[in-house]
Amino acid sequence: MEILSIGNELLIGRIANTNAQLLCKKATLLGITVKRITVLPDNVNETAEAIRETLKRKPQFVLTTGGLGPTFDDKTLETVAKALGRKLMVNKDALRMVKEKYQAYATRAGGQTDELTEARVKMATFPEGTLPIHNPVGTAPGMRADLKSTVLIALPGVPAEMDGIFEETILPLLKKASGGAVFYEESLYADIMESTLAPLIDAAMRNNPEVYVKSHPQAEENQPHIELHLSTTTSNAAEARKRLHKTATQLAGLIKKNNGKVYTREYGTQGEV
Amino acid sequence: MEILSIGNELLIGRIANTNAQLLCKKATLLGITVKRITVLPDNVNETAEAIRETLKRKPQFVLTTGGLGPTFDDKTLETVAKALGRKLMVNKDALRMVKEKYQAYATRAGGQTDELTEARVKMATFPEGTLPIHNPVGTAPGMRADLKSTVLIALPGVPAEMDGIFEETILPLLKKASGGAVFYEESLYADIMESTLAPLIDAAMRNNPEVYVKSHPQAEENQPHIELHLSTTTSNAAEARKRLHKTATQLAGLIKKNNGKVYTREYGTQGEV
Repeated sequence: MEILSIGNELLIGRIANTNAQLLCKKATLLGITVKRITVLPDNVNETAEAIRETLKRKPQFVLTTGGLGPTFDDKTLETVAKALGRKLMVNKDALRMVKEKYQAYATRAGGQTDELTEARVKMATFPEGTLPIHNPVGTAPGMRADLKSTVLIALPGVPAEMDGIFEETILPLLKKASGGAVFYEESLYADIMESTLAPLIDAAMRNNPEVYVKSHPQAEENQPHIELHLSTTTSNAAEARKRLHKTATQLAGLIKKNNGKVYTREYGTQGEV
Repeated sequence: MEILSIGNELLIGRIANTNAQLLCKKATLLGITVKRITVLPDNVNETAEAIRETLKRKPQFVLTTGGLGPTFDDKTLETVAKALGRKLMVNKDALRMVKEKYQAYATRAGGQTDELTEARVKMATFPEGTLPIHNPVGTAPGMRADLKSTVLIALPGVPAEMDGIFEETILPLLKKASGGAVFYEESLYADIMESTLAPLIDAAMRNNPEVYVKSHPQAEENQPHIELHLSTTTSNAAEARKRLHKTATQLAGLIKKNNGKVYTREYGTQGEV
């Protein structure tokens, strides 16, 4: 899977890319590997080119976030159309979704109009041959394009809307694709120089090729407190536990042999307990 | 400028990409436009390919973060060597920097060794023809490669080290490149439907082509509170103030004419006051 985060506000550092982080976390827990995140500007040509490059790598899924709203800088539908070489046309189902939202807002808010202005119709103007996705939180529908090697899905940038569509529609899709795999993780904490630790991690990973170990220094290198993050992906919880336990035990043994201290052993998975 | 953030921990959603956000913020304030951020795995082949793609776009600067430490998954120097088709060799100046750090740690920490283990020498093993950059905070030096169209700079992933090198060495470089331009910004807050606002922003931007306006919904669309973020880049503070003031005044007028409410006017720049 690849993620394309669209929005100038990300490139000027105005906000952190929490949308991509959430999608990565949720996809990973479903056993789906995110291979790349690309952050792109509100610029049709540059971002269309990046979409074409991404599709050449043939990821099973591409999720975009941002740019589905009514303002002039919401250009994702236009950008996808350009990338795919398809015409933009008003999608009847999408227009119905948008219309229903504004009717509901107008009923609730009284003074507001439910008129389908140009800016509102834009949210339902889709690349030919793509499908709208119901947005349970906000106004702009998501978009799904089933391409030759890739399912390309466009999600809104407003975090609650992105997550709403993800939970309702994308999660079941990814779950089916991953065949029930889950991501399991375990952390060890150790006092040892990172450079002394390096060959020990190498050895543990050679012995346990299905477990990935990454070291995260917790403080300056002259106070060498390090988190060791172990992870594995499998559909079998008992197997995951066995793999992680074996690797953690070997690593802890190696660290102690090399005059390091091992502090805590935490076992867990964010996926299930 | 483009940013390449290297590290599996970003792709599994374990951490937010705060490094890229900080670099974007600081570069933008110096008048440098960040055109793309790419988040990549600790995988030499995939990431070397992404570096080659990036260099083809000929950005003036490419900053990478992550992967300069001593552990097996710190592969950025190897990856850059592969991308540039250069040999890896121990860089004398880099080795001196690493050695001095471990001597200082050993003196301070007593029991620790300053021996130059394989993992430590790795931090000084650079692509041929590149230069080490002093790290005022941690152990691993940064790396600078002056290529035909691009200055490629590798920074560590530990935030304090990344920022330490940025402030000491990269900031002056970018400042020189931008010729003293600064990024100025101003926000307006309004109660108006985003879709009603869209054509008003279009009009204001057509009248003020040097000002970029982006709308950020602050709440659900049925309670239409919106931030309007205006920004401009110039080396002339008075000119920036004039541009932003003119655009904000026009926008506020248009919003009121369309039955919207304008709440606050905030003027400021993060660059200087």
